[in-house]
Amino acid sequence: MDKFLSPNHRKRIKRLESLWGNLTDLSNMAKEYGIEDMLQDNGLKVMQQLIYLNMDLLPGREGNDSISPSGTEWEMKSINILLTQGFSTNHHTNHDIIAKYRKVPWSFAIYEDITLKEIYVMKPCQLEPMFKHWEEQLANGKPHLNNPKIPVKFVRNNGTRVFPYNKEHPIDPDSINLS
Amino acid sequence: MDKFLSPNHRKRIKRLESLWGNLTDLSNMAKEYGIEDMLQDNGLKVMQQLIYLNMDLLPGREGNDSISPSGTEWEMKSINILLTQGFSTNHHTNHDIIAKYRKVPWSFAIYEDITLKEIYVMKPCQLEPMFKHWEEQLANGKPHLNNPKIPVKFVRNNGTRVFPYNKEHPIDPDSINLS
Repeated sequence: MDKFLSPNHRKRIKRLESLWGNLTDLSNMAKEYGIEDMLQDNGLKVMQQLIYLNMDLLPGREGNDSISPSGTEWEMKSINILLTQGFSTNHHTNHDIIAKYRKVPWSFAIYEDITLKEIYVMKPCQLEPMFKHWEEQLANGKPHLNNPKIPVKFVRNNGTRVFPYNKEHPIDPDSINLS
Repeated sequence: MDKFLSPNHRKRIKRLESLWGNLTDLSNMAKEYGIEDMLQDNGLKVMQQLIYLNMDLLPGREGNDSISPSGTEWEMKSINILLTQGFSTNHHTNHDIIAKYRKVPWSFAIYEDITLKEIYVMKPCQLEPMFKHWEEQLANGKPHLNNPKIPVKFVRNNGTRVFPYNKEHPIDPDSINLS
Protein backbone atom coordinates (compact mmCIF):
# COMPACT_ATOMS: atom_id res chain seq x y z
CA MET A 1 0.00 0.00 0.00
CA ASP A 2 1.21 3.54 -0.69
CA LYS A 3 2.54 5.66 2.15
CA PHE A 4 0.17 8.41 3.31
CA LEU A 5 0.53 11.45 1.03
CA SER A 6 3.34 9.79 -0.90
CA PRO A 7 3.59 10.79 -4.59
CA ASN A 8 1.54 7.72 -5.53
CA HIS A 9 -1.14 8.49 -2.97
CA ARG A 10 -1.31 12.11 -4.17
CA LYS A 11 -1.66 10.88 -7.74
CA ARG A 12 -4.68 8.78 -6.79
CA ILE A 13 -6.24 11.73 -4.99
CA LYS A 14 -5.75 13.90 -8.06
CA ARG A 15 -7.32 11.32 -10.35
CA LEU A 16 -10.35 11.03 -8.07
CA GLU A 17 -10.79 14.78 -7.80
CA SER A 18 -10.63 15.35 -11.53
CA LEU A 19 -13.32 12.70 -12.12
CA TRP A 20 -15.50 13.78 -9.18
CA GLY A 21 -16.07 17.18 -10.76
CA ASN A 22 -18.18 15.49 -13.44
CA LEU A 23 -20.76 14.52 -10.84
CA THR A 24 -22.03 18.00 -10.10
CA ASP A 25 -24.27 18.30 -13.18
CA LEU A 26 -25.70 14.84 -12.60
CA SER A 27 -26.37 15.67 -8.97
CA ASN A 28 -28.24 18.82 -9.98
CA MET A 29 -30.28 16.84 -12.46
CA ALA A 30 -31.07 14.19 -9.83
CA LYS A 31 -32.41 16.89 -7.52
CA GLU A 32 -34.76 18.07 -10.26
CA TYR A 33 -36.17 14.55 -10.20
CA GLY A 34 -36.65 14.61 -6.45
CA ILE A 35 -33.67 12.37 -5.70
CA GLU A 36 -32.01 13.68 -2.58
CA ASP A 37 -28.76 11.76 -2.77
CA MET A 38 -27.96 10.14 -6.09
CA LEU A 39 -25.18 8.01 -4.56
CA GLN A 40 -27.52 6.36 -2.04
CA ASP A 41 -30.33 3.88 -2.62
CA ASN A 42 -29.64 3.52 -6.33
CA GLY A 43 -30.55 7.19 -6.83
CA LEU A 44 -28.74 7.71 -10.11
CA LYS A 45 -30.11 4.52 -11.64
CA VAL A 46 -33.61 5.48 -10.54
CA MET A 47 -33.28 8.83 -12.27
CA GLN A 48 -32.09 7.14 -15.46
CA GLN A 49 -35.10 4.81 -15.47
CA LEU A 50 -37.53 7.66 -14.78
CA ILE A 51 -36.18 9.51 -17.78
CA TYR A 52 -36.37 6.62 -20.22
CA LEU A 53 -39.79 5.56 -18.88
CA ASN A 54 -41.05 9.16 -18.94
CA MET A 55 -42.22 8.94 -15.35
CA ASP A 56 -41.89 10.95 -12.16
CA LEU A 57 -40.88 9.79 -8.71
CA LEU A 58 -43.70 9.49 -6.19
CA PRO A 59 -42.22 11.40 -3.28
CA GLY A 60 -42.30 10.25 0.30
CA ARG A 61 -42.72 6.55 -0.40
CA GLU A 62 -40.67 3.68 0.84
CA GLY A 63 -39.13 1.79 -2.03
CA ASN A 64 -39.19 3.37 -5.43
CA ASP A 65 -42.63 4.16 -6.70
CA SER A 66 -43.20 6.20 -9.80
CA ILE A 67 -46.11 7.83 -11.60
CA SER A 68 -46.73 7.94 -15.35
CA PRO A 69 -48.52 10.66 -17.37
CA SER A 70 -51.84 8.77 -17.16
CA GLY A 71 -51.69 9.21 -13.38
CA THR A 72 -50.94 5.52 -12.83
CA GLU A 73 -48.68 4.59 -9.90
CA TRP A 74 -45.96 2.03 -10.59
CA GLU A 75 -43.73 -0.30 -8.64
CA MET A 76 -40.19 0.30 -9.95
CA LYS A 77 -37.50 -2.37 -9.64
CA SER A 78 -33.93 -2.66 -10.81
CA ILE A 79 -31.18 -5.21 -10.66
CA ASN A 80 -27.47 -5.57 -11.43
CA ILE A 81 -27.30 -8.95 -13.17
CA LEU A 82 -23.57 -9.22 -12.51
CA LEU A 83 -24.45 -9.51 -8.82
CA THR A 84 -27.82 -11.26 -8.66
CA GLN A 85 -30.48 -12.91 -10.83
CA GLY A 86 -33.71 -11.98 -9.05
CA PHE A 87 -35.45 -8.66 -8.38
CA SER A 88 -35.82 -7.90 -4.68
CA THR A 89 -39.30 -7.28 -3.28
CA ASN A 90 -39.88 -6.72 0.42
CA HIS A 91 -38.23 -8.17 3.51
CA HIS A 92 -41.64 -8.53 5.15
CA THR A 93 -43.80 -9.70 2.26
CA ASN A 94 -47.21 -10.64 3.67
CA HIS A 95 -50.82 -10.66 2.42
CA ASP A 96 -51.09 -6.87 2.72
CA ILE A 97 -47.99 -6.33 0.61
CA ILE A 98 -49.19 -8.80 -2.01
CA ALA A 99 -52.57 -7.05 -2.13
CA LYS A 100 -50.73 -3.79 -2.79
CA TYR A 101 -48.57 -5.47 -5.46
CA ARG A 102 -51.72 -6.67 -7.27
CA LYS A 103 -52.95 -3.12 -7.76
CA VAL A 104 -50.12 -1.58 -9.78
CA PRO A 105 -48.09 -2.15 -12.94
CA TRP A 106 -44.39 -2.82 -12.55
CA SER A 107 -41.19 -1.74 -14.31
CA PHE A 108 -38.07 -3.91 -14.20
CA ALA A 109 -34.69 -2.43 -15.15
CA ILE A 110 -31.78 -4.76 -15.86
CA TYR A 111 -28.26 -3.39 -15.42
CA GLU A 112 -24.84 -4.80 -16.08
CA ASP A 113 -22.86 -2.92 -13.47
CA ILE A 114 -23.89 0.69 -14.16
CA THR A 115 -25.01 0.10 -17.76
CA LEU A 116 -28.74 -0.08 -18.36
CA LYS A 117 -29.39 -3.00 -20.72
CA GLU A 118 -33.17 -3.51 -20.75
CA ILE A 119 -36.38 -2.30 -19.15
CA TYR A 120 -39.55 -4.41 -19.08
CA VAL A 121 -43.02 -3.43 -17.93
CA MET A 122 -45.64 -5.84 -16.63
CA LYS A 123 -49.27 -5.59 -15.65
CA PRO A 124 -50.07 -7.07 -12.25
CA CYS A 125 -52.03 -9.92 -13.88
CA GLN A 126 -48.81 -10.99 -15.61
CA LEU A 127 -47.16 -11.32 -12.21
CA GLU A 128 -49.98 -13.45 -10.85
CA PRO A 129 -47.87 -16.70 -10.89
CA MET A 130 -45.41 -15.00 -8.51
CA PHE A 131 -48.13 -13.70 -6.19
CA LYS A 132 -49.85 -17.11 -6.08
CA HIS A 133 -46.56 -18.84 -5.31
CA TRP A 134 -45.90 -16.47 -2.40
CA GLU A 135 -49.42 -16.94 -1.07
CA GLU A 136 -48.90 -20.69 -1.06
CA GLN A 137 -45.75 -20.22 0.98
CA LEU A 138 -47.59 -17.94 3.41
CA ALA A 139 -50.38 -20.54 3.68
CA ASN A 140 -47.80 -22.90 5.16
CA GLY A 141 -47.84 -20.77 8.28
CA LYS A 142 -45.04 -18.28 7.79
CA PRO A 143 -45.96 -14.79 9.10
CA HIS A 144 -44.12 -13.21 6.18
CA LEU A 145 -41.62 -14.01 3.42
CA ASN A 146 -38.16 -12.50 3.59
CA ASN A 147 -37.64 -10.75 0.26
CA PRO A 148 -39.00 -13.27 -2.24
CA LYS A 149 -37.32 -12.68 -5.58
CA ILE A 150 -38.79 -12.21 -9.05
CA PRO A 151 -36.43 -14.02 -11.44
CA VAL A 152 -34.95 -12.05 -14.33
CA LYS A 153 -35.87 -14.96 -16.56
CA PHE A 154 -39.55 -14.69 -15.61
CA VAL A 155 -39.54 -10.98 -16.43
CA ARG A 156 -37.79 -11.48 -19.75
CA ASN A 157 -40.21 -14.26 -20.72
CA ASN A 158 -43.41 -12.54 -19.68
CA GLY A 159 -42.83 -8.78 -19.72
CA THR A 160 -43.04 -6.16 -22.46
CA ARG A 161 -39.65 -4.74 -23.35
CA VAL A 162 -39.75 -0.94 -23.56
CA PHE A 163 -36.00 -0.23 -23.50
CA PRO A 164 -33.88 -0.11 -25.60
CA TYR A 165 -36.53 1.74 -27.51
CA ASN A 166 -37.67 -0.14 -30.59
CA LYS A 167 -36.53 2.17 -33.38
CA GLU A 168 -39.61 1.77 -35.54
CA HIS A 169 -42.26 1.17 -32.93
CA PRO A 170 -41.16 2.51 -29.56
CA ILE A 171 -43.57 1.42 -26.82
CA ASP A 172 -44.78 4.00 -24.34
CA PRO A 173 -44.68 2.12 -21.00
CA ASP A 174 -47.82 3.94 -19.95
CA SER A 175 -49.72 2.37 -22.86
CA ILE A 176 -49.98 -1.02 -21.11
CA ASN A 177 -52.48 0.56 -18.73
CA LEU A 178 -54.87 1.34 -21.57
CA SER A 179 -55.19 -2.19 -22.90
CA MET B 1 -45.67 15.74 -17.76
CA ASP B 2 -44.08 15.53 -21.22
CA LYS B 3 -45.56 13.20 -23.79
CA PHE B 4 -43.54 10.03 -24.45
CA LEU B 5 -40.73 10.80 -26.92
CA SER B 6 -41.95 14.37 -27.37
CA PRO B 7 -39.23 16.95 -28.14
CA ASN B 8 -39.04 17.80 -24.44
CA HIS B 9 -38.73 14.18 -23.42
CA ARG B 10 -36.03 13.63 -26.04
CA LYS B 11 -34.17 16.66 -24.72
CA ARG B 12 -34.12 15.18 -21.21
CA ILE B 13 -32.85 11.86 -22.56
CA LYS B 14 -30.07 13.64 -24.42
CA ARG B 15 -29.02 15.58 -21.35
CA LEU B 16 -28.89 12.40 -19.30
CA GLU B 17 -26.89 10.51 -21.90
CA SER B 18 -24.30 13.24 -22.30
CA LEU B 19 -23.73 13.34 -18.52
CA TRP B 20 -23.80 9.55 -18.07
CA GLY B 21 -20.73 9.16 -20.26
CA ASN B 22 -18.68 10.79 -17.51
CA LEU B 23 -19.34 7.86 -15.21
CA THR B 24 -17.29 5.28 -17.10
CA ASP B 25 -13.89 6.41 -15.78
CA LEU B 26 -15.21 6.56 -12.24
CA SER B 27 -16.72 3.11 -12.59
CA ASN B 28 -13.39 1.70 -13.78
CA MET B 29 -11.65 3.35 -10.84
CA ALA B 30 -14.23 1.94 -8.40
CA LYS B 31 -13.55 -1.56 -9.70
CA GLU B 32 -9.84 -1.11 -9.02
CA TYR B 33 -10.87 -0.51 -5.40
CA GLY B 34 -12.96 -3.66 -5.29
CA ILE B 35 -16.30 -1.85 -5.52
CA GLU B 36 -18.59 -3.91 -7.71
CA ASP B 37 -21.32 -1.35 -8.29
CA MET B 38 -20.47 2.23 -7.44
CA LEU B 39 -24.14 3.29 -7.63
CA GLN B 40 -25.24 0.82 -4.96
CA ASP B 41 -24.52 0.78 -1.24
CA ASN B 42 -22.75 4.12 -1.29
CA GLY B 43 -20.01 2.63 -3.49
CA LEU B 44 -18.69 5.86 -4.91
CA LYS B 45 -18.56 7.57 -1.53
CA VAL B 46 -16.77 4.57 -0.08
CA MET B 47 -14.13 4.78 -2.80
CA GLN B 48 -13.65 8.48 -2.13
CA GLN B 49 -13.10 7.86 1.58
CA LEU B 50 -10.69 4.99 0.91
CA ILE B 51 -8.58 7.25 -1.24
CA TYR B 52 -8.41 10.17 1.20
CA LEU B 53 -7.84 7.80 4.14
CA ASN B 54 -5.25 5.81 2.18
CA MET B 55 -6.98 2.54 2.96
CA ASP B 56 -8.18 -0.52 1.08
CA LEU B 57 -11.56 -2.22 1.20
CA LEU B 58 -11.72 -5.47 3.12
CA PRO B 59 -13.43 -7.70 0.60
CA GLY B 60 -16.27 -10.04 1.40
CA ARG B 61 -17.47 -8.26 4.50
CA GLU B 62 -20.93 -7.07 5.32
CA GLY B 63 -20.96 -3.35 5.91
CA ASN B 64 -17.91 -1.39 4.90
CA ASP B 65 -14.74 -2.46 6.56
CA SER B 66 -11.37 -1.18 5.49
CA ILE B 67 -7.72 -1.90 6.14
CA SER B 68 -4.90 0.61 6.61
CA PRO B 69 -1.20 0.20 5.75
CA SER B 70 -0.38 -0.93 9.32
CA GLY B 71 -2.68 -3.92 8.73
CA THR B 72 -5.34 -2.53 11.06
CA GLU B 73 -8.98 -3.25 10.22
CA TRP B 74 -11.42 -0.36 10.46
CA GLU B 75 -15.13 0.18 10.75
CA MET B 76 -16.02 2.76 8.07
CA LYS B 77 -19.12 4.94 8.41
CA SER B 78 -20.56 7.78 6.39
CA ILE B 79 -23.56 10.05 6.58
CA ASN B 80 -25.36 12.68 4.51
CA ILE B 81 -26.09 15.40 7.07
CA LEU B 82 -28.77 16.91 4.85
CA LEU B 83 -30.79 13.73 5.49
CA THR B 84 -29.86 12.56 8.99
CA GLN B 85 -27.80 13.52 12.05
CA GLY B 86 -26.60 10.14 13.31
CA PHE B 87 -24.33 7.46 11.87
CA SER B 88 -26.08 4.12 11.35
CA THR B 89 -24.67 1.04 13.05
CA ASN B 90 -26.44 -2.33 12.84
CA HIS B 91 -30.10 -3.29 12.77
CA HIS B 92 -29.37 -6.16 15.16
CA THR B 93 -26.89 -4.59 17.55
CA ASN B 94 -26.30 -7.05 20.39
CA HIS B 95 -23.47 -7.95 22.77
CA ASP B 96 -21.55 -9.78 20.03
CA ILE B 97 -21.70 -6.78 17.71
CA ILE B 98 -20.60 -4.43 20.49
CA ALA B 99 -17.69 -6.75 21.31
CA LYS B 100 -16.64 -6.54 17.67
CA TYR B 101 -17.04 -2.74 17.68
CA ARG B 102 -14.71 -2.50 20.70
CA LYS B 103 -11.87 -4.12 18.78
CA VAL B 104 -11.40 -1.72 15.86
CA PRO B 105 -10.83 1.97 15.13
CA TRP B 106 -13.55 3.84 13.26
CA SER B 107 -13.68 6.40 10.46
CA PHE B 108 -16.67 8.75 10.12
CA ALA B 109 -17.23 10.63 6.86
CA ILE B 110 -19.64 13.56 6.82
CA TYR B 111 -21.25 14.49 3.50
CA GLU B 112 -23.51 17.29 2.43
CA ASP B 113 -25.36 15.56 -0.40
CA ILE B 114 -22.47 14.18 -2.49
CA THR B 115 -19.83 16.59 -1.18
CA LEU B 116 -17.38 15.22 1.38
CA LYS B 117 -17.01 17.83 4.12
CA GLU B 118 -15.09 16.12 6.94
CA ILE B 119 -13.64 12.78 7.99
CA TYR B 120 -12.96 11.92 11.64
CA VAL B 121 -11.20 8.90 13.07
CA MET B 122 -11.76 7.48 16.54
CA LYS B 123 -10.18 4.78 18.64
CA PRO B 124 -12.65 2.33 20.16
CA CYS B 125 -11.96 3.68 23.65
CA GLN B 126 -13.23 7.06 22.48
CA LEU B 127 -16.53 5.42 21.54
CA GLU B 128 -16.87 3.76 24.93
CA PRO B 129 -19.72 6.11 26.07
CA MET B 130 -21.78 4.89 23.09
CA PHE B 131 -21.04 1.22 23.74
CA LYS B 132 -21.88 1.58 27.46
CA HIS B 133 -25.13 3.32 26.64
CA TRP B 134 -26.17 0.53 24.27
CA GLU B 135 -25.25 -2.13 26.84
CA GLU B 136 -27.47 -0.42 29.39
CA GLN B 137 -30.36 -0.57 26.93
CA LEU B 138 -29.67 -4.25 26.25
CA ALA B 139 -29.58 -4.88 30.02
CA ASN B 140 -33.23 -3.79 30.11
CA GLY B 141 -34.11 -7.02 28.37
CA LYS B 142 -34.11 -6.19 24.69
CA PRO B 143 -32.62 -9.00 22.55
CA HIS B 144 -31.02 -6.41 20.29
CA LEU B 145 -31.10 -2.70 19.42
CA ASN B 146 -32.41 -1.64 16.02
CA ASN B 147 -29.67 0.49 14.50
CA PRO B 148 -28.58 2.69 17.40
CA LYS B 149 -27.10 5.89 16.02
CA ILE B 150 -23.79 7.62 16.74
CA PRO B 151 -24.55 11.36 16.72
CA VAL B 152 -22.54 13.58 14.38
CA LYS B 153 -22.07 15.94 17.30
CA PHE B 154 -20.44 13.21 19.40
CA VAL B 155 -18.02 12.42 16.57
CA ARG B 156 -17.15 16.07 15.97
CA ASN B 157 -16.56 16.65 19.69
CA ASN B 158 -14.52 13.53 20.37
CA GLY B 159 -12.90 12.43 17.14
CA THR B 160 -9.69 13.42 15.35
CA ARG B 161 -10.34 15.28 12.12
CA VAL B 162 -8.18 13.92 9.29
CA PHE B 163 -10.00 15.51 6.35
CA PRO B 164 -9.84 18.15 4.98
CA TYR B 165 -6.13 17.54 5.34
CA ASN B 166 -4.46 20.06 7.61
CA LYS B 167 -2.16 21.90 5.22
CA GLU B 168 0.78 22.14 7.58
CA HIS B 169 0.32 19.02 9.63
CA PRO B 170 -1.80 16.45 7.78
CA ILE B 171 -2.72 13.56 10.05
CA ASP B 172 -2.29 10.03 8.75
CA PRO B 173 -5.45 8.24 9.99
CA ASP B 174 -3.38 5.12 10.56
CA SER B 175 -1.23 7.01 13.09
CA ILE B 176 -3.93 6.85 15.79
CA ASN B 177 -3.21 3.13 16.09
CA LEU B 178 0.38 3.81 17.12
CA SER B 179 -0.35 6.06 20.08
